[in-house]
Amino acid sequence: MHHDLERFFNPRSIAVIGASQDLITISGQPLHHLVSHHYAGRLYPVNPKYQEILGVKCYASIEALPETPDLALILINSSRAAEMLRACGKKGVRFAIVFSSGYSEVGGRGIEMQRELAAVAAEFDMGIIGPNCQGMLNAAGNVYAGFGSVFFTAYDAGAVSMVSQSGGFGFSVMNLASKDGGVHFRQMVTTGNEIGVSTLDFIEHFIDDAGTEVIAVYIEGLKDAHRLLKVGRRALAQKKPILAWKVGNSVQGARAAASHTANLGGAMALYQAAFRQSGIIQVEDIQDVVDYSRAFRCGKLPKGNRVAIITVSGGAGILMTDECVARGMQVPQLSAETTEKLRAIVPAFGSIQNPVDVTAAIFNDLSLIRRTLQAVLDDPNVDAIAMINASLQGELADNIAIEITAIAAQTDKPIFLAWSARDELARAAYARLDALKIPHYKSPVRCGRALAALSSYAASLRREELRLEETVPVCFVPALKTQLVVKRYDWSEHFAKQALADYGIGVTREILVSTAAAAVEAARTLGYPVVLKVQSPDIPHKTEARAVRLGVDSDTAVALAFDEIMRNAQAYQADARIEGVLVQEMVAGGIETILGVTNDPLFGPAVMFGLGGIFAEVLHDVSFRLAPVTYSVALEMIDEIKGSAVLKGARGAAPADIDALAGAIVRVSAMAVDLQDHLAELDINPLFVLPKGQGVKAGDALLKPKN
Amino acid sequence: MHHDLERFFNPRSIAVIGASQDLITISGQPLHHLVSHHYAGRLYPVNPKYQEILGVKCYASIEALPETPDLALILINSSRAAEMLRACGKKGVRFAIVFSSGYSEVGGRGIEMQRELAAVAAEFDMGIIGPNCQGMLNAAGNVYAGFGSVFFTAYDAGAVSMVSQSGGFGFSVMNLASKDGGVHFRQMVTTGNEIGVSTLDFIEHFIDDAGTEVIAVYIEGLKDAHRLLKVGRRALAQKKPILAWKVGNSVQGARAAASHTANLGGAMALYQAAFRQSGIIQVEDIQDVVDYSRAFRCGKLPKGNRVAIITVSGGAGILMTDECVARGMQVPQLSAETTEKLRAIVPAFGSIQNPVDVTAAIFNDLSLIRRTLQAVLDDPNVDAIAMINASLQGELADNIAIEITAIAAQTDKPIFLAWSARDELARAAYARLDALKIPHYKSPVRCGRALAALSSYAASLRREELRLEETVPVCFVPALKTQLVVKRYDWSEHFAKQALADYGIGVTREILVSTAAAAVEAARTLGYPVVLKVQSPDIPHKTEARAVRLGVDSDTAVALAFDEIMRNAQAYQADARIEGVLVQEMVAGGIETILGVTNDPLFGPAVMFGLGGIFAEVLHDVSFRLAPVTYSVALEMIDEIKGSAVLKGARGAAPADIDALAGAIVRVSAMAVDLQDHLAELDINPLFVLPKGQGVKAGDALLKPKN
Repeated sequence: MHHDLERFFNPRSIAVIGASQDLITISGQPLHHLVSHHYAGRLYPVNPKYQEILGVKCYASIEALPETPDLALILINSSRAAEMLRACGKKGVRFAIVFSSGYSEVGGRGIEMQRELAAVAAEFDMGIIGPNCQGMLNAAGNVYAGFGSVFFTAYDAGAVSMVSQSGGFGFSVMNLASKDGGVHFRQMVTTGNEIGVSTLDFIEHFIDDAGTEVIAVYIEGLKDAHRLLKVGRRALAQKKPILAWKVGNSVQGARAAASHTANLGGAMALYQAAFRQSGIIQVEDIQDVVDYSRAFRCGKLPKGNRVAIITVSGGAGILMTDECVARGMQVPQLSAETTEKLRAIVPAFGSIQNPVDVTAAIFNDLSLIRRTLQAVLDDPNVDAIAMINASLQGELADNIAIEITAIAAQTDKPIFLAWSARDELARAAYARLDALKIPHYKSPVRCGRALAALSSYAASLRREELRLEETVPVCFVPALKTQLVVKRYDWSEHFAKQALADYGIGVTREILVSTAAAAVEAARTLGYPVVLKVQSPDIPHKTEARAVRLGVDSDTAVALAFDEIMRNAQAYQADARIEGVLVQEMVAGGIETILGVTNDPLFGPAVMFGLGGIFAEVLHDVSFRLAPVTYSVALEMIDEIKGSAVLKGARGAAPADIDALAGAIVRVSAMAVDLQDHLAELDINPLFVLPKGQGVKAGDALLKPKN
Repeated sequence: MHHDLERFFNPRSIAVIGASQDLITISGQPLHHLVSHHYAGRLYPVNPKYQEILGVKCYASIEALPETPDLALILINSSRAAEMLRACGKKGVRFAIVFSSGYSEVGGRGIEMQRELAAVAAEFDMGIIGPNCQGMLNAAGNVYAGFGSVFFTAYDAGAVSMVSQSGGFGFSVMNLASKDGGVHFRQMVTTGNEIGVSTLDFIEHFIDDAGTEVIAVYIEGLKDAHRLLKVGRRALAQKKPILAWKVGNSVQGARAAASHTANLGGAMALYQAAFRQSGIIQVEDIQDVVDYSRAFRCGKLPKGNRVAIITVSGGAGILMTDECVARGMQVPQLSAETTEKLRAIVPAFGSIQNPVDVTAAIFNDLSLIRRTLQAVLDDPNVDAIAMINASLQGELADNIAIEITAIAAQTDKPIFLAWSARDELARAAYARLDALKIPHYKSPVRCGRALAALSSYAASLRREELRLEETVPVCFVPALKTQLVVKRYDWSEHFAKQALADYGIGVTREILVSTAAAAVEAARTLGYPVVLKVQSPDIPHKTEARAVRLGVDSDTAVALAFDEIMRNAQAYQADARIEGVLVQEMVAGGIETILGVTNDPLFGPAVMFGLGGIFAEVLHDVSFRLAPVTYSVALEMIDEIKGSAVLKGARGAAPADIDALAGAIVRVSAMAVDLQDHLAELDINPLFVLPKGQGVKAGDALLKPKN
């Protein structure tokens, strides 16, 4: 879908198909809103029942229109919408918003009708928005092309543009953010069932739209989710922040998959991976949209995550520290030099440690603010400042704002303010801050949260720079693809591990045998003790079939174990295809982890990493990334799990070979990309991570080809 | 401290000591605020410099006052505050607020001066508030006895009373909640360094104060934290909700303790335990105070945690579901009967599942709302309703509010509304809701969060009822106390476990021996294989000393192991006091957990439970409760840890003996109470939880007496 959406948001003419003289109904509202908000283009209501509506000439049909409108609003019953859309197509209309409901959301006939709509749009290469949506509002161009309560009000144009899959709620967000939060929107569109122009298409448009500074998006689910990473990274490259609100975590149905990786990789895990990999900022409430938009407006990005807190109230300093630390920032010690400077400035009953408490003494000496701010800004350990002014108001507030703005104008470190005075009591002060785009918040919690969002975005930019310098891993093993096409059943351990070895991933030394004598010979070659396991695509649960023996330590024992395993396997499933018995080295001293691939129908291949056993399965302490991942991202994945301390040598253990582990993650991700047309799921469980310098070894593996 | 604080909040007369004619300064403000807000009692400024201030007669000294004031405000320099307090004491003044700074917060001389203040207050049995605080504001009685920006404004009186340890920030909360949030406060006080009347004293007062319906508290740290549980439970018994904002999580210093329990039991863990055990609701921002206060005003408590969601916008329904589920509520299936009823009401393109989507069809048929609400309310699977009205406004909004209030008046199930219309566009509708105390919120997230707070409070009430019906475990083992007084060093495993056995907690079968021959005999008695460990109060880390042998399985091996252990122990520490070698059964098939006691200097004894090893130590997946705990609370502790599935039989394992485990937690808590004057720390690590019906066994234990 590559329509120029600039024309959609700024149509020179609009046809309103099914317009009604009953201006309060859904079909009556759009024309009313366009007229009352002074739409500057040409309007063509279409309805054979009327001569005119609101003094605008009404046409009997689309064919009868005197020109081809840039945009058509389709407001008629779903049963006739396709017919109207076709007429629009014939007329050469480029964009149509279908407001009508009664499509896939009702099932049955609705699904067919929706397919028909999509087919018509494709036939005429029309950009279709909806169906089942509430339209578009371009505040910057006075285009109020939709219905709903919020359309009755006029909106100031700002620099935030938003696309929402929910109509009613999406417009509520814009309304509250703009009217109560003072954050103004530029272009706002709802996409409903989204059969044509998609959420990501609109985001691409906003990235290119010079007037948009911040992009907001409300997502229920993306049908073209595989594009999310690329689109997000393009926005990151343009330094245009995307605030994403993703809902639907609790309603998604459970999936039944063979591997842990696929079971744990629910939609939300992959959305979050894509968000993280492309610097998209997650929001969780309307207030976040407001607060973060203000944060990004400041135009400054912290160089690191170290924040100095300056407060006039000790209690709020503690609160701000909590909030910053909880959200991944550091509240570092100030340098000795700064502390010395502060000793001369801050009263004895204040605090010259971070958080710096200048106390209510500012009532007596205003210059305290400026001198403290300057000293702290000059500290090389400080990347950003959060200052708390409690409820200071009136003239005092104004004078403090003068001090702050004077300093802020001369630094590239962000200064954020928590200032609880109500608007009417600090109007002059707030106006000074707003003029310099200095973000200020009523609560220290909101302030800390917003600063952390900015800081996290800055960190994403730094990570992205690092990533772009790295080599993206690429592997080709063409022979495997051929095998995967042929062997479409679950691959047993030995063959799955041979595939891993093909991609350079360490595996246990092992030999597949079909006689007891060969088993003994294999065990001698590998060295005692060994492990014996049956190999059969029909017996994925080898232990359950009593077809695994650990720590077998003599020739006699191996021969006995071989016979027993074969007997048990046959008893377990008489017609199982037995490939043989795998004789394998016993791995000692490794930490058990799990590394896997899920090939999501929407996102494509993703990699999962976690500690083995309960950590992944019970605690869900795992990290996901969309493939491919570079080395630095693999390290992030390892760091991200709560149990990562175990790999670094917690509880007196030797540190594990994290370097080799990261290498394995990178290779598995390259394998996932190489095999994305053929591989459904892969679990390496356990992947033994040996002590530093000794590498990793896949202890067992499960590989599921695509059907 | 048992002062009648009613008199403090409603003094008949107030002395303002150190009052200044410079009305903008800290010492000038209080008299100004009292006068300008029409304080109805008698005012006595005290300052030898003036004849009068603001037309009020000024006195040269406290002695010169014509009567004993009920309350004194002390606004003079810290160096002279004690002297003034003494004069107040001699005059018979019952309450004094010391505003002055320069006490413990500056250290050194300040600490001494603070002690002096406390001594004077004690001598005259005066209720002292502060020092280093911003005073009190009783909106219900027009007593504005403090300083700061917020005192320049008048406040409507409401039903929320608050005590805050932070002055500036505490008043900011009141100001924003009242003016922007519409939640009005009754009595508000700040306690600063809190050397006299404490936060908990004020909470006790608010519990008894008939005009207070909701109590809010901002806590940095309680010096009388041991009272928190009792005070919280008294509030719970009176059904008076406490909203607690506890800060200072990230700044608390790390403690170095011998046991994991004490290391993990930082202040915040114990505060949260006390909150949970007494139904205190934690808040995290100003908006929570506003939102939850509104929730509690509704006067209805859900009977369970099952919420039905009704929405006019599908998208917001998903969002609300996410929020409710994330906060521990259920969004259950509606009964077949309800679904049938809804099928006849809700349009085909809506949803008759929970969340129920009535769609924008309400524009055409308003009765949809009433009929849907009634059908869902009648469902026995539903305990509360969250309804989402998007941005509906104007006359339509008013008509919908009429429908909702008519239904709400006739049900005892709470109905909460997410309604995003701005105040000025739905004034009549909101007024109708407010008149019936129906909580409404601008965002579905806030609405879900507030309903979950109410639901969680109702659950606390139910839990408390259950607890009150249970037997509180009590154990007395007087002999142990005598031993603990004598043996003040760390107890070695065997003696620690004997103490556990005294309280009826299962331990491994074991025999302490001092010769190799006795070891062999012991092993035969216990049955092979056995474990051998050195026992010495000087060797807490037995493995490090190479003085542990596992799985010893023959007479010869036992004798050899005995000699080796003794040799290694002596090599490890030549002068170690060796109590002998412990011969112990090998426990098989149990799940390793950790159960411990920390005897906190502020809170008293608390119990900790978690899974063993990395779960507790690396992931900090543990639960705490203040002792004693009853059986139902012990079960909660087990359920609360993320790894609890392991005990219930995750990954195909047999379910563990949870009943016996809960019993052990109860007994350990009784032990903690019995020994609270003598015991500092206790770790049972591991505590083996055997399969169902087989009990628990302490595998090792560490007991640290109080010094």
